[in-house]
Amino acid sequence: MSFNTFGRVLRFSTWGESHGPALGAVVDGCPPGLTLREKDIQPFLDARRPGQSRYTTQRKEADQVRILSGVFEERTTGTPIHLMIENTDQRSKDYSEIARSYRPGHADYAYDAKYGHRDYRGGGRSSARETAARVAAGAVARAIIPEVTIHAYVCELGGDAIEREAIDYDQITRNPFFCPDSWAAKRWEEKVEKARKDGSSLGAVVECVALGVPAGWGAPVYAKLDADLASAMMSINAVKGVEIGDGFEAARLTGEQNADAMSPGPDGKPVFASNHAGGTAGGISTGQPVVCRVAFKPTSSILTPVPSINSDGDAVDVMTKGRHDPCVGIRGAPVVAAMMALVLADHKMLHRAQVA
Amino acid sequence: MSFNTFGRVLRFSTWGESHGPALGAVVDGCPPGLTLREKDIQPFLDARRPGQSRYTTQRKEADQVRILSGVFEERTTGTPIHLMIENTDQRSKDYSEIARSYRPGHADYAYDAKYGHRDYRGGGRSSARETAARVAAGAVARAIIPEVTIHAYVCELGGDAIEREAIDYDQITRNPFFCPDSWAAKRWEEKVEKARKDGSSLGAVVECVALGVPAGWGAPVYAKLDADLASAMMSINAVKGVEIGDGFEAARLTGEQNADAMSPGPDGKPVFASNHAGGTAGGISTGQPVVCRVAFKPTSSILTPVPSINSDGDAVDVMTKGRHDPCVGIRGAPVVAAMMALVLADHKMLHRAQVA
Amino acid sequence: MSFNTFGRVLRFSTWGESHGPALGAVVDGCPPGLTLREKDIQPFLDARRPGQSRYTTQRKEADQVRILSGVFEERTTGTPIHLMIENTDQRSKDYSEIARSYRPGHADYAYDAKYGHRDYRGGGRSSARETAARVAAGAVARAIIPEVTIHAYVCELGGDAIEREAIDYDQITRNPFFCPDSWAAKRWEEKVEKARKDGSSLGAVVECVALGVPAGWGAPVYAKLDADLASAMMSINAVKGVEIGDGFEAARLTGEQNADAMSPGPDGKPVFASNHAGGTAGGISTGQPVVCRVAFKPTSSILTPVPSINSDGDAVDVMTKGRHDPCVGIRGAPVVAAMMALVLADHKMLHRAQVA
Amino acid sequence: MSFNTFGRVLRFSTWGESHGPALGAVVDGCPPGLTLREKDIQPFLDARRPGQSRYTTQRKEADQVRILSGVFEERTTGTPIHLMIENTDQRSKDYSEIARSYRPGHADYAYDAKYGHRDYRGGGRSSARETAARVAAGAVARAIIPEVTIHAYVCELGGDAIEREAIDYDQITRNPFFCPDSWAAKRWEEKVEKARKDGSSLGAVVECVALGVPAGWGAPVYAKLDADLASAMMSINAVKGVEIGDGFEAARLTGEQNADAMSPGPDGKPVFASNHAGGTAGGISTGQPVVCRVAFKPTSSILTPVPSINSDGDAVDVMTKGRHDPCVGIRGAPVVAAMMALVLADHKMLHRAQVA
Repeated sequence: MSFNTFGRVLRFSTWGESHGPALGAVVDGCPPGLTLREKDIQPFLDARRPGQSRYTTQRKEADQVRILSGVFEERTTGTPIHLMIENTDQRSKDYSEIARSYRPGHADYAYDAKYGHRDYRGGGRSSARETAARVAAGAVARAIIPEVTIHAYVCELGGDAIEREAIDYDQITRNPFFCPDSWAAKRWEEKVEKARKDGSSLGAVVECVALGVPAGWGAPVYAKLDADLASAMMSINAVKGVEIGDGFEAARLTGEQNADAMSPGPDGKPVFASNHAGGTAGGISTGQPVVCRVAFKPTSSILTPVPSINSDGDAVDVMTKGRHDPCVGIRGAPVVAAMMALVLADHKMLHRAQVA
Repeated sequence: MSFNTFGRVLRFSTWGESHGPALGAVVDGCPPGLTLREKDIQPFLDARRPGQSRYTTQRKEADQVRILSGVFEERTTGTPIHLMIENTDQRSKDYSEIARSYRPGHADYAYDAKYGHRDYRGGGRSSARETAARVAAGAVARAIIPEVTIHAYVCELGGDAIEREAIDYDQITRNPFFCPDSWAAKRWEEKVEKARKDGSSLGAVVECVALGVPAGWGAPVYAKLDADLASAMMSINAVKGVEIGDGFEAARLTGEQNADAMSPGPDGKPVFASNHAGGTAGGISTGQPVVCRVAFKPTSSILTPVPSINSDGDAVDVMTKGRHDPCVGIRGAPVVAAMMALVLADHKMLHRAQVA
Repeated sequence: MSFNTFGRVLRFSTWGESHGPALGAVVDGCPPGLTLREKDIQPFLDARRPGQSRYTTQRKEADQVRILSGVFEERTTGTPIHLMIENTDQRSKDYSEIARSYRPGHADYAYDAKYGHRDYRGGGRSSARETAARVAAGAVARAIIPEVTIHAYVCELGGDAIEREAIDYDQITRNPFFCPDSWAAKRWEEKVEKARKDGSSLGAVVECVALGVPAGWGAPVYAKLDADLASAMMSINAVKGVEIGDGFEAARLTGEQNADAMSPGPDGKPVFASNHAGGTAGGISTGQPVVCRVAFKPTSSILTPVPSINSDGDAVDVMTKGRHDPCVGIRGAPVVAAMMALVLADHKMLHRAQVA
Repeated sequence: MSFNTFGRVLRFSTWGESHGPALGAVVDGCPPGLTLREKDIQPFLDARRPGQSRYTTQRKEADQVRILSGVFEERTTGTPIHLMIENTDQRSKDYSEIARSYRPGHADYAYDAKYGHRDYRGGGRSSARETAARVAAGAVARAIIPEVTIHAYVCELGGDAIEREAIDYDQITRNPFFCPDSWAAKRWEEKVEKARKDGSSLGAVVECVALGVPAGWGAPVYAKLDADLASAMMSINAVKGVEIGDGFEAARLTGEQNADAMSPGPDGKPVFASNHAGGTAGGISTGQPVVCRVAFKPTSSILTPVPSINSDGDAVDVMTKGRHDPCVGIRGAPVVAAMMALVLADHKMLHRAQVA
């Protein structure tokens, strides 16, 4: 039983609170001999890092990762890799006035109901700051699956979806929204800016596509690739829905419409006519792109006062000042990519364990 | 690492293939002293049992459960509870001609790609028959959480949704679709009958509501109640999407719209003005109903020929004769309920472990 | 968290009570494609089976194993292998009179203190009958490690040890004591017969040697091969001590005496001058024989009355009639061998997972 | 599957190498609301700290622990507690000349055989320095089990055992050997000093007694308290044997001699006439003191040259200069105590989970 650990063969555990001195991830089970340097991890953290555009929280964190173990002479040794990131811009005072009030949509009340005692500074352990540790761990996972390319991008923001035909992976890093459709990115600028100015917030949908996953990763029943992806994604802060392939839309198709026909390919492997399934069948990869979609609710921290209660059970109105993302889904994209990498690397190793 | 096991404190492992002699579940970690008899489990299996209406597969299985261990004098002892169900209507000949052809949408190709060797009779381990073992295990879980009432029902079938206002939980067991809206159930009769006659199939969405879950179940980060539910549901055959609360719809709301305002309740606990969150915050229950929705793709077995390949890599057309559900989502409802019970019972025990 | 499951990659779970209808093991994680038939498992069960000589319990059990899943056309499929053994000679009446009295040395009081409710018939779940399921699972493990040969034998019985020089593995199956020293086996006949007639009991030490384990199995720190062997062996009924290599004797040596000197071997691998370490260093196999020793206490069921209490807290004298082994350590030998096979097969797969 | 994690409900993972920048433990599953400050942990680290007498290694480490997460306002929050200890006296040069030679008795060859690439500085991950992280984690465990008092002491050193009658727990901290028999401690001074001067080394046996463990902790079969203790102790560097209660001596007793007779106690609980069993029956605590004994081999690092090979397969003579404990068993005592605390705290929580 593990509360803060994820994975089967490649397992990582994260620790740390939003306003503690540091946070980190211990990655266990990584194969030996892989090249891994801080500079291989840092770019992923930089992509997720706050404070880089006006569309994300203004908290300034360097998010510099340090490798404290498990790597010797720039190569992994097979022992636990500890990745640590120091917090540098906590500003606890921003949060002190709501120490006792339960912010609607946040974990405040639930944590108190469970534990009785919580670190309320910036949400403590329930803060999305924890996802920095995942992104660092995800960089280790990527070293395990060089055959896989992962694209994660916002495909819908505040109800405004991208055009499927306009998807250009090269665009993803060229706008502050991880948006593969440059026209949509333009539209979203205004949308997010308005929400930010209004002290409001927006939801988003992140899509993630993994190319190069061979057939045979995954496992039946409770270790299905789909199930592990669902768990991985739903564990991200603010996520409320996960789809594999066509997802809910598949429930509206007939069997004929939903069938992914196969024909013989050049190397004995099938060529698929479509990918409604999102790259898995029976929980195991088919060699098609693995596709999942993740729904992020709008940031719960808003300037509009919302009725709530405090820890004494009294009525209060809560408005959340401080520094927040007007749309948490945006910075969710690198986190979704990291979780995809972690699940796939884990299943590559699991496959090797059972079927090498 | 467990391929066929689910749970943290209350853990169950299932075994068995569609056309093997039997299948079963070993439930480990159940508290001692709970009343448990075969007759407490059988009704749940009966609800899932095939062959009860023209709208499900005509395979006839008695699905009689036997308790082989872990219960003494009708009470649990705290040791593993083994529940076994014999298969009685296998008819392997129905499947023999497709032993070598990969049925599109099925796990045939993926299993062969992974394992090289598979029990092809009726899908073997990848058959939805495995869910009988889950339903039996779910009955044990229910004995652990008498304070919780679970309703699982089909809320959309072939794209035709129920009316929210028409939901009447008493209707669920009064029609062959586990439909809480009697008008929709009427409409669906024709819809499913047509699909069955055409040899086609339909998708469905199952909604599950758990009432009576106290605040405080669940855990932060990777053991979030939401994440465990997502994993549990996505591990069910044919499931392609999972939502908690408003799910993907939440991604289209603003922070103001999505906020679940709280006011002081009679006993110091909050009264919520809405339940967009679906009963969880930060992965922990809030005392509101826990709500999730599960998308089932249309049954992959259809009479319309679909191009595919066989294990030699040659092109073939596959049409799946034999006995199949025209809409697997229907019989998915009792399975979803069972998984909800198993996740909640597990988290009740997990909560007790850490915070008793 | 698993109460009744053992293993990391290859995991098995056992279920069943001494006097229930059956018992079994679910083996999960076994690689696909291995030949496995009931007749490959049965000989191991036969070796452990009671009632074969006057020196073991007279309970007559056929111990016929059935493979109920995970094998298709005599080959493993990679899905859970369920092995079931029906109980046929329970004779519950033998035990009924001690339903309320706590037998000293047995788990009766501890189970009641923990669970409040227990299956007292023959010790229920705490009976050594559970080890039949391990032996069946061990036969699956052996199919995974054909390169390894395991010898398990009684090296000391009632304080009377074998001569090291007299060890002849061929003798092990030629006497009723799994004794590799034919002279010792002769002496033990009288010893055990006397204990049996007196209604007394004897302890024993079982030694287990695994030949053919390559260097590199095992893992650092908490997954040390030594630690897993210790856990595996100490989980066997009546076991009170475990040693790897020289064990406690190593604590009496100097560093010079204990050093296993190495010299270059023909294939670049070291040749060791001695094996004080018992085939492991830092928790990882070195290529030498893996050696462990396991101490079994004398059977707690004896005819001599011992003061005890009953479940009301009253003083009682307990003498255990019924059918018992005068020395449980004897039939412990096949169980120790099975656990050795299970640990090694698990670590072979774990090694492949991380370092393939 | 976890390589560097231990525990079921209370789980801790350690990371770090002997000569890396730091090492640490992440303790997950700790209940909320317990008082925990660095000053509550430091004394345990100080007891294990090297360089405090001439009888241990002269490496000087401050071993200052920092709590980096999981504690807020001096109380645990239920989230992961990260304990970090910086390395300050690595002196890598001491080890550089043996980077390629395999030290007999050390993990050098086994690690290379497994991983191909290792951090050879001071043994890297295989160094006993890892046990500092365990001792820190053990201090958290102690906060969970205030009802339990643990004594761990060296009961035999270099083959010279203490007198049972002379055991005085107050003596343990009054000599540099954690020896409860002041006369033995005197004798050992000379013994260890001679070994140190000779560049030789000695083995030792550590005994650990836990008082105050109530009946009912532990679990049947593979989660036996005994099995978890065996695994915990055997995972400590240099340990080659573990006994519970009489251990191997029990194998030499008759059933009558080994029986722990019970009589009615004042509160309905039994009073035991003896404790051959070491406080457990069927893997569950009986309310008696839990007793285990742990054998440490002599330190493998000695000044006498021992034949070995290097990574090229050539013959070399290895003598290990540098700073080493002449008897690693001595500083093993606080580690054994920590592991006892961790296992007991875990089982207290596990018991609460299943039987609360």
